Amino acid sequence: MKIGNQHYRSIWFDEQSQHVKIIDQRWLPHQFKIVTLNNRDAFIAAIGDMWVRGAPLIGATAAYAFYVQMKKDPSHQSLDQTYDLLLATRPTAVNLRWALDKMRALLTRLSENQRPQAALALAQEICEQDVERNRLIGVHGLGLIKKIATTKSPGERVNILTHCNAGWLATVDWGTATSPIYHAAQENIHVHIYVDETRPRNQGAHLTAFELAQQNIDHQLIVDNAGGHLMQHGDIDLVITGTDRTTGSGDVCNKIGTYLKALAARDNDIPFYVALPSTTIDWALSNGIAQIPIEERDSLEVTKIWGKLDNGTVAQVQICPDNTPVANPAFDVTPARLVTGLITERGICEASKLGLAKLFPEFVTN
Amino acid sequence: MKIGNQHYRSIWFDEQSQHVKIIDQRWLPHQFKIVTLNNRDAFIAAIGDMWVRGAPLIGATAAYAFYVQMKKDPSHQSLDQTYDLLLATRPTAVNLRWALDKMRALLTRLSENQRPQAALALAQEICEQDVERNRLIGVHGLGLIKKIATTKSPGERVNILTHCNAGWLATVDWGTATSPIYHAAQENIHVHIYVDETRPRNQGAHLTAFELAQQNIDHQLIVDNAGGHLMQHGDIDLVITGTDRTTGSGDVCNKIGTYLKALAARDNDIPFYVALPSTTIDWALSNGIAQIPIEERDSLEVTKIWGKLDNGTVAQVQICPDNTPVANPAFDVTPARLVTGLITERGICEASKLGLAKLFPEFVTN
Repeated sequence: MKIGNQHYRSIWFDEQSQHVKIIDQRWLPHQFKIVTLNNRDAFIAAIGDMWVRGAPLIGATAAYAFYVQMKKDPSHQSLDQTYDLLLATRPTAVNLRWALDKMRALLTRLSENQRPQAALALAQEICEQDVERNRLIGVHGLGLIKKIATTKSPGERVNILTHCNAGWLATVDWGTATSPIYHAAQENIHVHIYVDETRPRNQGAHLTAFELAQQNIDHQLIVDNAGGHLMQHGDIDLVITGTDRTTGSGDVCNKIGTYLKALAARDNDIPFYVALPSTTIDWALSNGIAQIPIEERDSLEVTKIWGKLDNGTVAQVQICPDNTPVANPAFDVTPARLVTGLITERGICEASKLGLAKLFPEFVTN
Repeated sequence: MKIGNQHYRSIWFDEQSQHVKIIDQRWLPHQFKIVTLNNRDAFIAAIGDMWVRGAPLIGATAAYAFYVQMKKDPSHQSLDQTYDLLLATRPTAVNLRWALDKMRALLTRLSENQRPQAALALAQEICEQDVERNRLIGVHGLGLIKKIATTKSPGERVNILTHCNAGWLATVDWGTATSPIYHAAQENIHVHIYVDETRPRNQGAHLTAFELAQQNIDHQLIVDNAGGHLMQHGDIDLVITGTDRTTGSGDVCNKIGTYLKALAARDNDIPFYVALPSTTIDWALSNGIAQIPIEERDSLEVTKIWGKLDNGTVAQVQICPDNTPVANPAFDVTPARLVTGLITERGICEASKLGLAKLFPEFVTN
């Protein structure tokens, strides 16, 4: 998608320099920085410290890490170590493990001198597939938005709530939850997006509001507390979020607070959809609340908030007394019963084992 | 309650200087400032710009404004004007109107030269009554906490979630939601409070975390998004919040986001109680969502966050792109059906007309 009218992806292989480059998302929206990831440690830091984030993008980034490491040391030991180090960076998103498994399965079969180029080719393929999956999510999700648009008076907008950033910056391009929105805008449907700021890291305020502004999509930033009130007053037609891991039974693990919005959507009879490439599905799991590990992140994410001072420099402010104890779970699980449907690259299905089996029969066992 | 081991109220008449003083809560927890309110404009600013906040404290502050203004101009016109100006400061909390009505009813009957002293006496009485009501809320609410404590193993704590600041800083003393907590602590029950930071103004992080730390109450700060996840995992035994206005039918209007926590409590079979002095009940209303005006506040509350820089000075940081559009509703309504019970100065009742009628028969008409 576009930043300042130029097209970008969130990660790419620069043919000229032969380097992997990313947008360092820690500084958005206040500073736009492109960073080269030159060695494995840089990749580990980029994922662990969230220079890149979003389940699909984490998977794509991990894939490129193999290319960089295989160029340096294509040994089996190096391969295994890379797998383990990357897997440990973030515990919740399942795309990470999916990409690592795919990469190790391929490289293990090859001789050492074949590994660097094969790793690069597979990383690039993973990226291209991600872009295509997200494009298809948009095509399928567009139908939902179109249907709501037909119920509106001329000039009336379709109001969509989203949480966190499931935008193109969370994927390689298009985004998951935002892909239907971008497709609707391309068809000149007036969509208005309520953007949850998404504490603690404010990815809604930092990234989604930035993305939508760059694409000229009508939006308003709200605090995470406001969505229920807006739903009670008829201000939301549709909720679309992303997911970091989806169980084979349709439970959805996504950024902390998603569950609260799903409850409010149900209480107000508002459709609550989750957009995902099938790579975020953990087919082996059947109970998200019991089975998905929830990352507990640094308390500084809660006590200090990062932003731009009036003088234009960026800084952190502490919002609580010194030494305030903190709990900081990064994700929560929305049970399948609260999810109206899953928007995937193969179409929209019920959030259930049966629903998923209809679209992905090859993954579902009895 | 205590700040640095010294006892304070949130507002008081200083006999020595004959002035009304408040804690200017805009600077907590980073700076502790006591301010004298010398004239009507100062009172209007103090309420409108939230130097003081919390429904009971707003009422008490408005009452003292009459004393200051009657000293200056005890005319009928001045009285009416003061009523109107104060009523316009904050639209949601009903204690404001309650205190204004009480004050005008008294002063109208008196001669001009009687008015200043009578206003002072009534303002002080309103404060004393608020303290006593909140103390009684604590006595009644203590029973709920004690009952949960009996279900715990030795050494296990009672986990309570609260939203915003319904602490002593929101009242004259004791607080509403915190009064049962302070009473439990006095009886050596180990309570652990999960404190919602409560965006946009972060009164949980600024005030509740500060209050609890000063009282040595075990607590953890969390983002507003986290409560549902904690409930899903059995980490919350009880939710207690305050309210800015309660309908005669038991609907509760409180700081934005309260409704989301009530939904999560219901979904996880966790008791959700609301603590209130009867002065926050608007007996005439029967449908909170339709009838209670919700204050829409400045977008700067959402886009900029105030706190302490690493160098110790305080500043605001902007968390979103320049010119991001914002919606900022300050309160939401939790329907009575989601409220387990109301903790009042007369006891605990069902959140319904019938429940309230049992405790407050004199206010309920058929």
